[in-house]
Amino acid sequence: MKLYELSGADDEIRFSPFVIRIKMALKHKGLDFDAIPIKFNDKSLIEPSGVKTVPVIEDNGKWLGESWDIACYLEDIYPDKPSLFGGEMGRHQAKFINSWSDAVLVRGLFPIIVADIITHFTPEDREYFIPLREKLLGMKISDTPKIRDKTIPKFNSSLTPLRTMLKSQPFICGPNPGYADYSAFGPIQWARIASPVELIKEGDPVYDWRERMLDLFSGFARSSKLGY
Amino acid sequence: MKLYELSGADDEIRFSPFVIRIKMALKHKGLDFDAIPIKFNDKSLIEPSGVKTVPVIEDNGKWLGESWDIACYLEDIYPDKPSLFGGEMGRHQAKFINSWSDAVLVRGLFPIIVADIITHFTPEDREYFIPLREKLLGMKISDTPKIRDKTIPKFNSSLTPLRTMLKSQPFICGPNPGYADYSAFGPIQWARIASPVELIKEGDPVYDWRERMLDLFSGFARSSKLGY
Repeated sequence: MKLYELSGADDEIRFSPFVIRIKMALKHKGLDFDAIPIKFNDKSLIEPSGVKTVPVIEDNGKWLGESWDIACYLEDIYPDKPSLFGGEMGRHQAKFINSWSDAVLVRGLFPIIVADIITHFTPEDREYFIPLREKLLGMKISDTPKIRDKTIPKFNSSLTPLRTMLKSQPFICGPNPGYADYSAFGPIQWARIASPVELIKEGDPVYDWRERMLDLFSGFARSSKLGY
Repeated sequence: MKLYELSGADDEIRFSPFVIRIKMALKHKGLDFDAIPIKFNDKSLIEPSGVKTVPVIEDNGKWLGESWDIACYLEDIYPDKPSLFGGEMGRHQAKFINSWSDAVLVRGLFPIIVADIITHFTPEDREYFIPLREKLLGMKISDTPKIRDKTIPKFNSSLTPLRTMLKSQPFICGPNPGYADYSAFGPIQWARIASPVELIKEGDPVYDWRERMLDLFSGFARSSKLGY
């Protein structure tokens, strides 16, 4: 199994929130994989997949992109390995939680950490990335740290559903984690790798959950190289 | 099975978002029940339950409150009836979606519809309800319609995770609904019963989902009496 993912100028700084989901899913399934770094402005390695975004996997000659599709592929092709969804109703509910994670976590974290993210890029990737994202943000990336007094409290408040739930169970999926946890952890770990801003404080149930996620698979995610 | 729920001055106007979840869950399980109206300022009928909020059920001499606990009770005591959760991972993910529904839907809808809600109350219930809620809101209930230009767009934007997911599946739980759907439908139906404000427009995937929810169980929720 090959997994293609974005890296910074330093090949070991690997921050894509969508790839992190799949790395955790591969560990959950107990599948070995080679993680291969690519850059924003050179995606030739993933061309056979037909998609232009990471993650992309190559498994027994099959190419596949889109983190949700990959998670479903892993569940269906490796049904004897630990389940990511716990059945069909679990899979569909995970899709909702994945949508929540995209709409609330990825989108909420982006303006907070983007100024830090770009410091890890190659000059070519900065040139590729900045104009597109500034158009989406409607502001200069260099101005985003100035509005953290608004973006950080808004992000923290958006964690309420996760925070409340974590008071009665250790993971979104129950006593043990599943894909819904990996889906939410992806963006949280993205922020942890890319930015020194401490968004989630000790004492917060979300902090404890993140610690549990970092401990999984012998500290797999904890061992990721941080960009600062 | 007896189900205790709040009603307006008109006994047939029954709007509690938390009760609606349980009514849908009871229909899902195919269980018959008597729905008994109570008022905010007279909760003597539910005293044996030890809780002060609806829903409360009385089933074979057992009293139970809190919608989430009731849903779990129904799943565990009636395992041969259609499942609400589809397994343990599904149950725990539903807890997250239930938290999301509380934090985002109930809390987001409240300031939009509260001025309409209180029109349905008895004078005694208004007296009981208004001071407590105005303290929570930090404003006069009579002023809340004036900020709908802010509260309605904010609510609509908070539906993004549901809206996005509904583009690929008809219900949160997949091809068929489950408790996660009822959990989200409770507050949406609360707003539909209590307020004439049209929050969800035709053409929105959330509108189509609501229509499907209203159609379930021979149009059970569609037949609820509206307060306007």
